[in-house]
Formats: sequence, structure tokens, C-alpha cells
Amino acid sequence: MARRRQLYEGKAKILFEGPEPGTLVQYFKDDATAGNGAKSGVITGKGVLNNRISEHLMLLLQDIGIPTHFIRRINMREQLVKEVEIIPLEVVVRNIAAGSIAKRFGIEEGTRLPRTIVEFYYKNDALNDPLVSEDHIIAFEWACPHDLEDMTSMAMRVNDFLCGLFSGIGIQLVDFKLEFGRSWEGDDMRIVLADEISPDNCRLWDNQTNEKLDKDRFRRDLGNVREAYQEVARRLGILPEAGNGGDMKGPETMQ
Amino acid sequence: MARRRQLYEGKAKILFEGPEPGTLVQYFKDDATAGNGAKSGVITGKGVLNNRISEHLMLLLQDIGIPTHFIRRINMREQLVKEVEIIPLEVVVRNIAAGSIAKRFGIEEGTRLPRTIVEFYYKNDALNDPLVSEDHIIAFEWACPHDLEDMTSMAMRVNDFLCGLFSGIGIQLVDFKLEFGRSWEGDDMRIVLADEISPDNCRLWDNQTNEKLDKDRFRRDLGNVREAYQEVARRLGILPEAGNGGDMKGPETMQ
Repeated sequence: MARRRQLYEGKAKILFEGPEPGTLVQYFKDDATAGNGAKSGVITGKGVLNNRISEHLMLLLQDIGIPTHFIRRINMREQLVKEVEIIPLEVVVRNIAAGSIAKRFGIEEGTRLPRTIVEFYYKNDALNDPLVSEDHIIAFEWACPHDLEDMTSMAMRVNDFLCGLFSGIGIQLVDFKLEFGRSWEGDDMRIVLADEISPDNCRLWDNQTNEKLDKDRFRRDLGNVREAYQEVARRLGILPEAGNGGDMKGPETMQ
Repeated sequence: MARRRQLYEGKAKILFEGPEPGTLVQYFKDDATAGNGAKSGVITGKGVLNNRISEHLMLLLQDIGIPTHFIRRINMREQLVKEVEIIPLEVVVRNIAAGSIAKRFGIEEGTRLPRTIVEFYYKNDALNDPLVSEDHIIAFEWACPHDLEDMTSMAMRVNDFLCGLFSGIGIQLVDFKLEFGRSWEGDDMRIVLADEISPDNCRLWDNQTNEKLDKDRFRRDLGNVREAYQEVARRLGILPEAGNGGDMKGPETMQ
């Protein structure tokens, strides 16, 4: 493969310059971190699974009219995406209390929230990604009120769609995190869904057993992390390709 | 004084049953706490000063049409107020970065914010009064969108008025905290300003020297806490009455 210029390395992905202007290559690593890097490890095969799961979900969302940065999957670990200006907010949609909201408000984990809640966190590792209000976002010009409204309404649509999708395969969508970017075509700017959607940034619980099928298995040392991600891919009807360079060794990945 | 039923004791005030239905007596203590009770002490005379300062500011705000719970001052430490259902939110208005917002966003204390920011904190000591977003408030039904809009617009009006008032006496209004309550007259409910407005819940910096004239002197062990509160009262043209039971001994309080 030709040498490409690396533009950014995050905790779970690397972004390279794309083959043509206005595109990027998004490479999915197996690295996992938790607690803003306090804990780190490798989940062998995670990058391959997340690349496939995120492709699948982004394509389904495009089908219902949600604009995304996704163009096409290139290979097992890479996808071609539009170059966007990332809005420095993590948009978290919550249906059931888990993680930080349970702690913040003293709610037992697993309690269904009185209604779906959309939260915004300022993307800044040095500040530990603090929760912010809409007024903070507008005052500090991370997004204008119009962009914020776009993101919120898209986040709610994504939630409706994914709740239905996961419900159909026996999974509760507890919460998830989205990122958005500004994409220009000529002078026209539109907000598009960016980043990825995968068990790295969703909480997914089995409907029957409440078993966690997401990154909390890593955060909380529950074991069988890769198997949980595979289970999500399997229920979605997608599985990593065979012959993936040896990082997925279980026979169940060879189907 | 006749024995009265105590309804509630907070960190700086006690609420007693009032002389007639729908009223309460708000008693100002000299007690001071900081860091949600991690630090506590007594600032002799503070209650007397805050009773007077809050009376003065509430009356001025009523004059510009802000509804408040304040009825009248009864004596040096007590005021008669309407009984309201307190909305469990602390509404913080910030003009200049100080305290938690400086820390949360890594902004140097003293930096003027790009615009005035209104924040909401959930009043809950056990949870350390966490910052909340409008979506949290509506989902958990601490206030409905209409009440929230009322509180926000009143908070902005109070800010405009107090910025002007303090500016006229050489003080910068850095930030302040308000509380609101629901007041019923028959079937009509209106949101009214409640609690107090005093150097206990405002940050007030001298315009020339940036000297702190508020509770940060106590929180940060800067000394001369009472003198700072007295200075605010003096500049506002009000001073505690003489003969106040000996808790204000400086000659400057006897004018």
C-alpha cells in the first residue's frame, strides 16, 4: 500500500489523508482505552468488527435520510469518509440510566429514564470531556443554535431508528455517543454524522439476560469482550470477512 | 418572641412558619459553609448584613417588575416571605469566569466570558449539586419548558439590573446564584424569585483592585470576610441598624 500521510491518531482510530481531496481514510485499531486513558488494552479483532458494524449502521441511517460522512468501506480495517470539520462535542443519547448519568443523579443503573435525554460533552481530554449545557455551547461558539438544533434532531432520529433495529435482534439500546461534523459542498454547509457507531460507543444489553454486549465489558473487566462485539455483528447479520490476517482466530469468525 | 414552628434549617438560613397562612419567616444565620459543608465557620454579623442587603436588592428588583417572595423585613435577622414551592435548581448567571466554570473549561479566573452564561445545578447535597442541562431538567420534571424559560429570562433581567447597580458603586458582578419558587394565588401559579441575594451567593469584585467582596474571602481563607460584606452594604447605601445585640462591634457599623 502506498505511503499515506497520517493526519490524526485517536484512541481507537487513525485518520489518513484520502485518495482524493475532501476525503479521509478512517483506520480502526484494536486499541481500547477507558476512563480517559486511565486504562488501556488491546481487544484483538475489535477494529475489524467495528469497521463492519459502523459501515452497516451508517448505511442504514443514510437510507432513512441521515447525512453521514461515510462513503464506502475500503478493506477490513479501513473506510473512506468525507473530510469534515468535527464539532467538538460528544452527543450522548440515553434511554436507560447507566454510567455517568446514574452516578451524577444517584439513579440505579438499568432504570428507564422518564424520557430520552440528549446530553452534550465538550471533547477535551485535558478537561476530561466535561458535561456542558446548550448555553455553554453557544457562548463558547462550539456550535450555533441552528447547528445544535440539527444535531439534536438528528440524534433523536438516530435513536428512534437504532432502538427499533436493536430491539428487532433482542438488544436494548441503553445509550450511545455520536459525533457530528460540518461538511461543505461549495458554499453549502451541512451537519453530518461522523466518527463511528459501534459497541465502543453504544451500551447494548441483551433483552433477556441484560448481559452487556459493549465496551463496558472492557471498562469493568467482565471478560469476553471480543465475543460480545462478535455477537452484536452476528445478530446484525454481518460478520467479519474470513482471512483477516490472523487477528480473529475463533472458528465462529470463519463462517 | 412566641414560639414558632421551624420548617427547615439550611446552611445559612432557617425557615419558620409565618404569622399567617402562605407566609414564612426567613431567619439569617451567621453560619458559613463551603465545598458543600466540607468547610464551616461563623462570620459574626453576616446574617444581619445579608438580611439587609437581600431586602434592598429584592425591593429594587420588585420595582422593575421581577416578582419575588419578599414581603418585608421584620427585624435585624428576619424577613417575612411568601411560602413558595422551591424549584430544586440553582440558577447561576456568569459574566466573568470564576470558580467552577474556570476549572471545568480551563479558563483563567477573571476572563470575561464571550457572553453571559446561565447554568442550572440540581439542588441535592448528597449528589454535590451537579450541573445539569435543560434536557435533564425537563426529563426529570424539575421544571417544565415554560417555567425554565421564565426562570432564564428573569435571571437575565436580574443580571442586567444588578450589573448596572453594582457598576454604579465600583463593583463588578462576576456571577451569582438565584433560586426560584412556584407561588399560587388561587389557581394561578407564577414563578417568583426566592431565597436571598447577598455576598453569600454573588461574586463581587472591586472594579479598581479586583479585591473580592464576597464569600470567596471565606472559601479561600482571605480574611476580613465581615468587612467585605460591610463594604458592599456601605456602597449600597445601607448599613445594619445600631444596637444589634453586639455582634457588629466595629465603629464603622455604628454610623
